[in-house]
Amino acid sequence: MHRSHTCGELTAKNIGQTVTLSAWVANRRDHGGVIFIDMRDRYGITQTVYDPECGATPESIRLAESYRSEYVVKVTGLVRARPDGQNNDKLVTGDIEVVVHHAEIFSESKLPPFEIDDFSQANEEIRLKHRYLDLRRKPVFETIEFRARMNRFTRDWFSDHGFLEVQTPIFTASSPEGARDFLIPSRLHHGKFYALPQAPQQYKQLLMVGGVDKYFQIAPCFRDEDPRADRHSCEFYQIDCEMSFVEQEDIFEVAEPFARDLIANMVPHKRLKSVVFPRYTHSESIDTFGSDKPDVRFDMHFEDFGEDFRDSGFSVFAQAVRDGGVVKAMKYEGSKGKGIMSRSEIDTMTAVAQAEGAKGLAYIIYEAEGPRSPILKFFTGNELAALEARFAPKPGDMIFFGAGERKLVCKVLGKVRLAMRDAFGLVDKNEIAFAWITDFPMYELKDDGTYDFEHNPFSMPHGGVDAFKEGVDPLSIYGCQYDLACNGYEVLSGSVRNHNIAALVKAFEIVGKGEEEVKAKFGAVYNAFQYGVPPHGGFAFGFDRLLMILKDETNIREIYAFPKSGKAEDTMMEAPTAIDEKQLRELHIKVREHKAK
Amino acid sequence: MHRSHTCGELTAKNIGQTVTLSAWVANRRDHGGVIFIDMRDRYGITQTVYDPECGATPESIRLAESYRSEYVVKVTGLVRARPDGQNNDKLVTGDIEVVVHHAEIFSESKLPPFEIDDFSQANEEIRLKHRYLDLRRKPVFETIEFRARMNRFTRDWFSDHGFLEVQTPIFTASSPEGARDFLIPSRLHHGKFYALPQAPQQYKQLLMVGGVDKYFQIAPCFRDEDPRADRHSCEFYQIDCEMSFVEQEDIFEVAEPFARDLIANMVPHKRLKSVVFPRYTHSESIDTFGSDKPDVRFDMHFEDFGEDFRDSGFSVFAQAVRDGGVVKAMKYEGSKGKGIMSRSEIDTMTAVAQAEGAKGLAYIIYEAEGPRSPILKFFTGNELAALEARFAPKPGDMIFFGAGERKLVCKVLGKVRLAMRDAFGLVDKNEIAFAWITDFPMYELKDDGTYDFEHNPFSMPHGGVDAFKEGVDPLSIYGCQYDLACNGYEVLSGSVRNHNIAALVKAFEIVGKGEEEVKAKFGAVYNAFQYGVPPHGGFAFGFDRLLMILKDETNIREIYAFPKSGKAEDTMMEAPTAIDEKQLRELHIKVREHKAK
Repeated sequence: MHRSHTCGELTAKNIGQTVTLSAWVANRRDHGGVIFIDMRDRYGITQTVYDPECGATPESIRLAESYRSEYVVKVTGLVRARPDGQNNDKLVTGDIEVVVHHAEIFSESKLPPFEIDDFSQANEEIRLKHRYLDLRRKPVFETIEFRARMNRFTRDWFSDHGFLEVQTPIFTASSPEGARDFLIPSRLHHGKFYALPQAPQQYKQLLMVGGVDKYFQIAPCFRDEDPRADRHSCEFYQIDCEMSFVEQEDIFEVAEPFARDLIANMVPHKRLKSVVFPRYTHSESIDTFGSDKPDVRFDMHFEDFGEDFRDSGFSVFAQAVRDGGVVKAMKYEGSKGKGIMSRSEIDTMTAVAQAEGAKGLAYIIYEAEGPRSPILKFFTGNELAALEARFAPKPGDMIFFGAGERKLVCKVLGKVRLAMRDAFGLVDKNEIAFAWITDFPMYELKDDGTYDFEHNPFSMPHGGVDAFKEGVDPLSIYGCQYDLACNGYEVLSGSVRNHNIAALVKAFEIVGKGEEEVKAKFGAVYNAFQYGVPPHGGFAFGFDRLLMILKDETNIREIYAFPKSGKAEDTMMEAPTAIDEKQLRELHIKVREHKAK
Repeated sequence: MHRSHTCGELTAKNIGQTVTLSAWVANRRDHGGVIFIDMRDRYGITQTVYDPECGATPESIRLAESYRSEYVVKVTGLVRARPDGQNNDKLVTGDIEVVVHHAEIFSESKLPPFEIDDFSQANEEIRLKHRYLDLRRKPVFETIEFRARMNRFTRDWFSDHGFLEVQTPIFTASSPEGARDFLIPSRLHHGKFYALPQAPQQYKQLLMVGGVDKYFQIAPCFRDEDPRADRHSCEFYQIDCEMSFVEQEDIFEVAEPFARDLIANMVPHKRLKSVVFPRYTHSESIDTFGSDKPDVRFDMHFEDFGEDFRDSGFSVFAQAVRDGGVVKAMKYEGSKGKGIMSRSEIDTMTAVAQAEGAKGLAYIIYEAEGPRSPILKFFTGNELAALEARFAPKPGDMIFFGAGERKLVCKVLGKVRLAMRDAFGLVDKNEIAFAWITDFPMYELKDDGTYDFEHNPFSMPHGGVDAFKEGVDPLSIYGCQYDLACNGYEVLSGSVRNHNIAALVKAFEIVGKGEEEVKAKFGAVYNAFQYGVPPHGGFAFGFDRLLMILKDETNIREIYAFPKSGKAEDTMMEAPTAIDEKQLRELHIKVREHKAK
């Protein structure tokens, strides 16, 4: 037996017991012939004492003198109360210490490349190369432990709500739409390749055709995309869900309670801004927050003043309206916070606007004496009154403007809004705000005058099959498709699917793809839809991204036990690697010559 | 709203309620203007009635007349009691029917390629091509549902016992030992490849170095092996588990209760032969059952009679012993079952023995009058007495012999033993019998006189580091390595790992691999083991194989929602497929010319 207790469980109740502990040496202190060793494992830290006058064998003392940090040792000894005044309230085991009688070393350790403590400042490259050491650090371990609990909570929640967990294949066929597939050459089938699923989209629809009715899975997904801070390279996980005989509202009635329960259970110290999630159509969200994944923890919504400034003396605004554009404004409530921005703060925000393509960033400052702005002199009293009627500015507040083409103005103000959030602490990091974004446009007009799918081709359009009637403008077709935004991240995407094969064929015709092409590219779904398809729909939560938000992480790599680097490498395992010729030959492939650039 | 109830929940309690159902048309019966439609979903079957005299609209009647099997329809109507004598006790909903007022069709269906019923005899190829229809069949769905419950039970059990679920990477480095890896060409790193993990072996050991202490995962594993009945191609799942500061007994104390609880919870109608699992060393198991995965549901163990027949007048036996071989025998207890085998049954068993390399299959038949056999005339009374002392044969029993080289005799008798099990129903299919097989030999002698690892190179040898002392015969080294057999299948494999880097290097030296090679091939583990390694060990249960046994399936493909075919193809999704040149170019690979054979 290597241990009778872990390093996180001995308390005053154990005083007088002989125990065996096995763990890592966290640190050592020598006090005049008596050696103190803190032993550390997953569960905690226990202080051990090697004292020749309290029964430590000479061999144990000799060993203890040889210990270095991260040695793995086993000790047997007596639990006793710590001397008065030496208790440590921060540790569960802080009232006791173990007086060692016998010790042995399981394993020695070289000097670790970084400190194994909670505040290690080692760079990510070193940490990932030695992830097995990084995992010994409490904050890193706690994230992995949080992930395990979130996995369990999620699976239990969906199972308890009647969803059947189905593991869909990891080896599948290449899907012609979407991001790049990862491929696996087949040894048994010369010149053929499996693909890893970008998501189990087709499988989950086939499960609905198969009568599974309610499905979920924490599904591994694979996309050959370039890594970025909120997207892990190679592989990531989504909470994938699909249900039959549902309309959009039925689906929201699953996703919304799940998200609420998840927050309440996993991060009870965090607060939902709104228990019922607000809803914005895609177009409203762009118009109001300049984003299809708005951060609604803070207000600063945009108001439209086009009508008010149509004939303004301020030609920038009037011209924008005459050109078919918009005049929008948002209020920065300095009155509730830090007051009016400094000159350099305003310059920073102007630079943000300019980086997004604006010429500048017009604004009005409200002081105790009233409004102040270089553009005020162009405004009529009515124009100012219109602004103030809608914003009711107080001293300390500011109003910021955007004028011009609608999409550009929304994008610019949206970015400025987020920059103000970050610069002036406009959000409470313990607040979580979800918002539904609905009614995504089905199509976009390409430069060459043809149409492409803007989002998921398999979504049911509003209006059903009739949406595709002759003569309908494709840009006027909206899908029963929705996202859920959370604190400015997209955390869910889904839709009611188009279960009518004739309508599906029509949807593809608009982007210039005939029935034969649909059949060739989506053969399984095309075939399955011939045999009785229930109306169905669903969603996928980005598991990793949700976890990142709940754990206040900004780097998605922190939430994996063994993350890939920012270059899509596993530096610890040395993946990817060159492969020997024999193995490639078995797979019927060869590597191309590297072309000089 | 598409339904107020499912097709599995309406009972007499709902009589008088107006309900909406949406489901598949299972079948239709017309009775003089009244149409009966059984509607089927995941939850059950509900009878609906279209009767113009009971409020069905003419449009509903017209629709019902157009229904074919597998149409998906929605109906609204009134729940009423079935007329006297028409109740169906086999259905939860058998006391009621729904009198349809209004109906609509969601989706039509072509004639399915096979009957959607519990007893479909369609061949596997058709079923897999249309798996979405196969899934509508109750026995198929029930297996997938069983799998979901087993997933949940397993994860809950390990979580509740303090194990942390960790998702290890699916994109990793190629591992030089073991089966063939599947490879993924990297787009970002020209000429390099990721590999899919054959098992998370290295990761779980690194988790132990990282202090995770107790880890589990239902891990997807990938091996490029040729498919067979008890091995799914491409991907399969194992219950992967590892723990720190443990010895073999501690590990058994986890695996054994898990297996017991799994049986008790998932298949309560099945019975464990022995609550405490018997243990056999690898060598004992071979000597006693002729297999390292013995089916111990029935006895028929081998007894050794070498000493008794050393000087026998039966020269086949005497010669075998003189040549250093064995004489083994097992008793077939016809007295408890069908009595003595027929001539043709004996011939069949002899053919089994011969197929395995035996010259024949000697036997003695016990009749009421006493023993009878062509070889009896060569036996002395003492020889016969020795046999009878150990087997105590009754009339109806038979004794079968094998003589010659030990491994061959064990293999032959082992196969004959299983052939008798199958031919004469010697086991109860509701009985489950586990057995531990321990102490696997570390090395095997190759034909060229050098040694190779017989099993896992990372196992700790019995005797620890000292096992590798100078002059020790490698064939005398046994690993702390074990399997768990269940009803004749290997369902678990594991070991106490060798956590001592010096000993690990020695283990590899015996097979001619130096330290530099270990470092190059197992870099992550080699590096990690420099920084304080706890003693650790674990196991992996074959999740799919366990499930197969619990569900009495003999074809492992039955236990996946979307299985690969016996040729490693997904015929429904058409994977693997050819890939276009552009995509291969991005991955820096090309397909080799197909050589004519």
